Amino acid sequence: MAVPIILIVALIAGIISIAMAMYFRYLVLKEDPGNERMQEVAGYIEEGAKTYLKVQYKILGIFVAVLAVAMLFLPSPFEESYTYTRLVAGALNWEQMVAYIIGAIGSMFAGWLGMYVGVKANTRAAQGCTVSTKKGFDIAFFGGTVMGLAVVGVALIGVSTLYWIVPDPMIVLGFSFGASSVALFMKCGGGIYTKTADVGADLVGKAEYDLPEDDPRNPATIADNVGDNVGDIAGMGSDLFDSYVASIIAAMILAATLPSFVDLVLEMDEYARFVFTVFPVVLCGVGLIASLLGIYIIKWKGSDDPGKALNTGTYLSTILFAGLAALFTLIMVVGLTGEQAIMLWKLCGCAVIGLFAGIVLGFTSDYFTRADRKPTRKMAEAAQEGHAVVILSGFSYGLLSVVPPAIGIIFAMIFAYLLGGVFGVAIAAVGMLAIVGTIVSNDAYGPIVDNARAIAEQGDLGDDIIRTADHLDSAGNTAKAITKGFAIGAANLTVLALMFSFATEANDINPGTIDVMDLLTLNVLIGAFIGVVVPALFSALLVMAVQRNAAKMVDEIRRQFEENPKILKGEEAADFSRTIDIATKGSLRELIIPSIISIVIPITVGILFGVAALGAFLVGAILSGFVFAIFMSNSGGAWDNAKKWIEDGNLGGKGTDVHKASITGDTVGDPFKDTAGPSINTLLVVMSLTASIFLGFLMLFSGGAGLLVF
Amino acid sequence: MAVPIILIVALIAGIISIAMAMYFRYLVLKEDPGNERMQEVAGYIEEGAKTYLKVQYKILGIFVAVLAVAMLFLPSPFEESYTYTRLVAGALNWEQMVAYIIGAIGSMFAGWLGMYVGVKANTRAAQGCTVSTKKGFDIAFFGGTVMGLAVVGVALIGVSTLYWIVPDPMIVLGFSFGASSVALFMKCGGGIYTKTADVGADLVGKAEYDLPEDDPRNPATIADNVGDNVGDIAGMGSDLFDSYVASIIAAMILAATLPSFVDLVLEMDEYARFVFTVFPVVLCGVGLIASLLGIYIIKWKGSDDPGKALNTGTYLSTILFAGLAALFTLIMVVGLTGEQAIMLWKLCGCAVIGLFAGIVLGFTSDYFTRADRKPTRKMAEAAQEGHAVVILSGFSYGLLSVVPPAIGIIFAMIFAYLLGGVFGVAIAAVGMLAIVGTIVSNDAYGPIVDNARAIAEQGDLGDDIIRTADHLDSAGNTAKAITKGFAIGAANLTVLALMFSFATEANDINPGTIDVMDLLTLNVLIGAFIGVVVPALFSALLVMAVQRNAAKMVDEIRRQFEENPKILKGEEAADFSRTIDIATKGSLRELIIPSIISIVIPITVGILFGVAALGAFLVGAILSGFVFAIFMSNSGGAWDNAKKWIEDGNLGGKGTDVHKASITGDTVGDPFKDTAGPSINTLLVVMSLTASIFLGFLMLFSGGAGLLVF
Repeated sequence: MAVPIILIVALIAGIISIAMAMYFRYLVLKEDPGNERMQEVAGYIEEGAKTYLKVQYKILGIFVAVLAVAMLFLPSPFEESYTYTRLVAGALNWEQMVAYIIGAIGSMFAGWLGMYVGVKANTRAAQGCTVSTKKGFDIAFFGGTVMGLAVVGVALIGVSTLYWIVPDPMIVLGFSFGASSVALFMKCGGGIYTKTADVGADLVGKAEYDLPEDDPRNPATIADNVGDNVGDIAGMGSDLFDSYVASIIAAMILAATLPSFVDLVLEMDEYARFVFTVFPVVLCGVGLIASLLGIYIIKWKGSDDPGKALNTGTYLSTILFAGLAALFTLIMVVGLTGEQAIMLWKLCGCAVIGLFAGIVLGFTSDYFTRADRKPTRKMAEAAQEGHAVVILSGFSYGLLSVVPPAIGIIFAMIFAYLLGGVFGVAIAAVGMLAIVGTIVSNDAYGPIVDNARAIAEQGDLGDDIIRTADHLDSAGNTAKAITKGFAIGAANLTVLALMFSFATEANDINPGTIDVMDLLTLNVLIGAFIGVVVPALFSALLVMAVQRNAAKMVDEIRRQFEENPKILKGEEAADFSRTIDIATKGSLRELIIPSIISIVIPITVGILFGVAALGAFLVGAILSGFVFAIFMSNSGGAWDNAKKWIEDGNLGGKGTDVHKASITGDTVGDPFKDTAGPSINTLLVVMSLTASIFLGFLMLFSGGAGLLVF
Repeated sequence: MAVPIILIVALIAGIISIAMAMYFRYLVLKEDPGNERMQEVAGYIEEGAKTYLKVQYKILGIFVAVLAVAMLFLPSPFEESYTYTRLVAGALNWEQMVAYIIGAIGSMFAGWLGMYVGVKANTRAAQGCTVSTKKGFDIAFFGGTVMGLAVVGVALIGVSTLYWIVPDPMIVLGFSFGASSVALFMKCGGGIYTKTADVGADLVGKAEYDLPEDDPRNPATIADNVGDNVGDIAGMGSDLFDSYVASIIAAMILAATLPSFVDLVLEMDEYARFVFTVFPVVLCGVGLIASLLGIYIIKWKGSDDPGKALNTGTYLSTILFAGLAALFTLIMVVGLTGEQAIMLWKLCGCAVIGLFAGIVLGFTSDYFTRADRKPTRKMAEAAQEGHAVVILSGFSYGLLSVVPPAIGIIFAMIFAYLLGGVFGVAIAAVGMLAIVGTIVSNDAYGPIVDNARAIAEQGDLGDDIIRTADHLDSAGNTAKAITKGFAIGAANLTVLALMFSFATEANDINPGTIDVMDLLTLNVLIGAFIGVVVPALFSALLVMAVQRNAAKMVDEIRRQFEENPKILKGEEAADFSRTIDIATKGSLRELIIPSIISIVIPITVGILFGVAALGAFLVGAILSGFVFAIFMSNSGGAWDNAKKWIEDGNLGGKGTDVHKASITGDTVGDPFKDTAGPSINTLLVVMSLTASIFLGFLMLFSGGAGLLVF
């Protein structure tokens, strides 16, 4: 009886979340969309974004369909609820397949909703800036919260409904895998799209023709604006959706299979068992409440300083989460034995540790990328020595910036483990992602104000309004740095939890398969080796994709300028559809190989070297992926801000050689920070889920020991 | 009785090697050193190199003395020969300390000898070019072989003599640690030195004043030439010396402690036991013979095409090694039982596999860095799109180039393991390093001809001679790419073998300490995490060091040009001593922190998280270090060659924007390929040896489980 009640709670929380999203959508849509020219530009952006989503979803449909059919023939993981003790031969795995499709559709829906509102909010935010900074901020921020709340809502509704129907974590695993497949496409595709357009626009427009940012004469301007939406709203949203669901499923699987935890729960009376099972869901609910309060705090503080408001919102949500989690724990321990109460408090501690670790990660990302801190300042100064030195400086600071968050994650792991063992680590991941609503909202705010600035520029709203929009935009950039640190940390802890859940799952199916993951065994060592190499390969492919596509974009822009000199004079409009087409098709073509890699490599490792090696593969990928993700995000962010700082008039300002060198840094950093770096998170989640989903299949090869047994 | 005979063989081989080195030294020194101006320039270079070595060895002396004293108080690893079963409390560890000091002195001697001849050979090679290409080639090549043979000679003499006196692998471990300490300083210091001078000279001389390469007016020219010697002769020599000795010691420790192998050997009669113990030394001897034959082949082929001659020499040495190893095995199996004979053949197979894997690695490095292959060609084309795109292209190809050698190493590991288990992997490392004489000779050839070219330029030998020297120089660059791939692969296999020997050693002291290295244990997972991060941190520090020092160099060059305009007109000589001083002091100051890190971090991990975590730390560092080393070496090499290809008149040639962009790539690549990338090898060896040396000490903390036991 207990289970349905929890599920109802989660379902209600999810529905509230979606309802709030719809309410914010209404608030945004009722605003004035501005003058005709602004609406025209916004219309182009909207159309470009929709075209992209349409083509993207079509290809995704094929990808999901193929994987769904493959899943159908996997050994079914279901037998009895909460257990996963043997493979049911013969039966088609249709429940998990349906969950997979629902997960994919849910993620697509959340992405669509967030982006649909985003592309409506931009012109309204620009118009809002003509009234007041606060008005502009409110519109943009509410536009962003739609994505944030949609993510939380769809996740909670999906997980709870599916689990209600088939009470087995394996069903949620299917849902999570669906969400991840979509996230991989959205994040890689969006990342390639946005940087194809951005780099292309910069290389020709800024560097060759000295056009300012967002100049309407630049044929890639609209594609650039579309890119912000598809990369940062839809992409980041689906990335965190994916991590959010994955953190829940990791905790669920561990709760169902981890011997120590299962024993603990089995010893309890019905009420205690209810409390412990409901706890992760309570944390998600508490996180939602904290996020909603955070959103109101941001709205209320927004008037003074938008950048501070966003960060204050995040910090206050965190503190609220800690307080509310403690409050709910205090209520829930009533009726538990002393020992059980201590255990629950410990788990509450794990969640809080996770969230604080996330904040620390965001904070270090902020330090390493802020223009008023030493690293970025040094990088700007390095630009005085020329193009090469600014690259070397960014490269080394980027690598250096890996150390503090690594220490932060290690501390979080140690404390969470000391409090709650492996299950504690999983709960820390859930805690870190509890305020995902706030995080995604802040992140989606960024592209909306970035677009608003462009629309203000193209809609001739005048310098004052553009400056206001600029002000809002720079707040978005700061928030973005923190969000990224957070997203990487959350993905890291989540995939670690997934790796542990993968191992316990393997032991549950076939006891002893992964008793240990011993690096002194050759299979395991090779697994770890391949794992460490994969994020490097993945980064290489994505950076190459951007570079290749941007070259096509450059050719197209040059062609337009050469064939029609009137474009450059501003007498005729550039052909935006062609550039949008290049970005759309290119990004989709280029994500095929990385996507296939992320599914095929883990399965191949499992088949050849066995599931223990596959576990080590995941560990290798997680650790090396962490290094690459942080390095690329932070170096990219810092180059960007160093350039902006120079553009603010420092070290000679715009047009100088120093500025040109800083543009080189920024251009190199673009695919680092917006394509490869953040895509690694999704890669890791997809690979981890692939391992779990295909576990039954891998058991067919020498009982999970792999074909190459040494 | 058997042991002394083997040692005599090794000792004789070592003495022959040194004698040959002295003979080649004599051949070089008797040549004509050229005109007065050439001798003057060579004199500056020699003096600069000697100054550097003097200061370097002074600081090294302090470092070695401090570590030696620390070692004295470590728990003594000696008890009975061949075993290491308990810690003898109270006794000072003076044997190992003395071996350590001898190892350090041996490495310093080899470095000094190689460099002493190198700086004499450069001007003679330049003068030789006035006679014929062959003459120039011969002098430069013989100059290089002095370093190659000195490395082999000192290593064999040191290992055999010490082992004769104290027949325990632990004594050789001390010797190896001494060699590594020196290698770390020589490689990092030399790497920072050479790139400080090179980058500084390029940034001001080439980019600002359009001076050609090696222009005598550039105050950093001499420092640049000195840098080639200290980085590529002394640095690379000590790096491979270090790997060579480490591969021997890894095999020795495994032979003495690996239970399966110990059992195998103990079951044998005296003759069989002799054969198996002598086998690794026989491999080294065979390698020396193959190297010497290779050297004569290169000399004989050198007349046609120097580049081909060097590579043919390498390939033929490899084939000779395989043939000779088979021949010696054929002789040695006489008198063994069938089973023993099969085992010996298998070990012979491991050695050959190792060497072929090394060649494959060199080959892929060559592919990824050659101007006539796709990656470098694409990078040169990317330079047409500007500075940023050439960086992105190099970055992605560099990361991509990690995949083929990783597959190569994995295959080598699998085959070696299938043939000989963990011991087979260690023998594969020995095999890979068997022809180290040839490898180091080819590598040391590079800086000699590079210097010869500079001396020809400054000694006004005319365009024809400079072209001949250029021809020799480009052969050096190709050989260098192969050498680097080889060095990284060899270090990688060696440190893997060291990691295994570390684990068996730990179990030998305290059975069960590292029965498994289980990634599902938090300690081990954290160890691996820290390990993966360390190469990133180390790379960041080294790149930053070069960047910081190069900035000082730039300031000094600008100051000289501004204060004394006659320098630029060629009327007065630049002040070379100041730039040499900056490079010398800067490189030594900057290597302190990386050196301390490489000793302190492994010990700290061991103290806090235990020896199993330390093992995982080593694995993490080895795998991530492999990625960073290959990535940095190959991207740097390719950028360099892309620039050279453009300078040959392609895509517009010198002076164009494309050329400028390619210079940016080259400048970024300089510290990648010559400082950070190759230093990672040494870092890995030092960390692995530190772990083994301090193992007894680490056992004092919760019996090896570490202070933080979860």
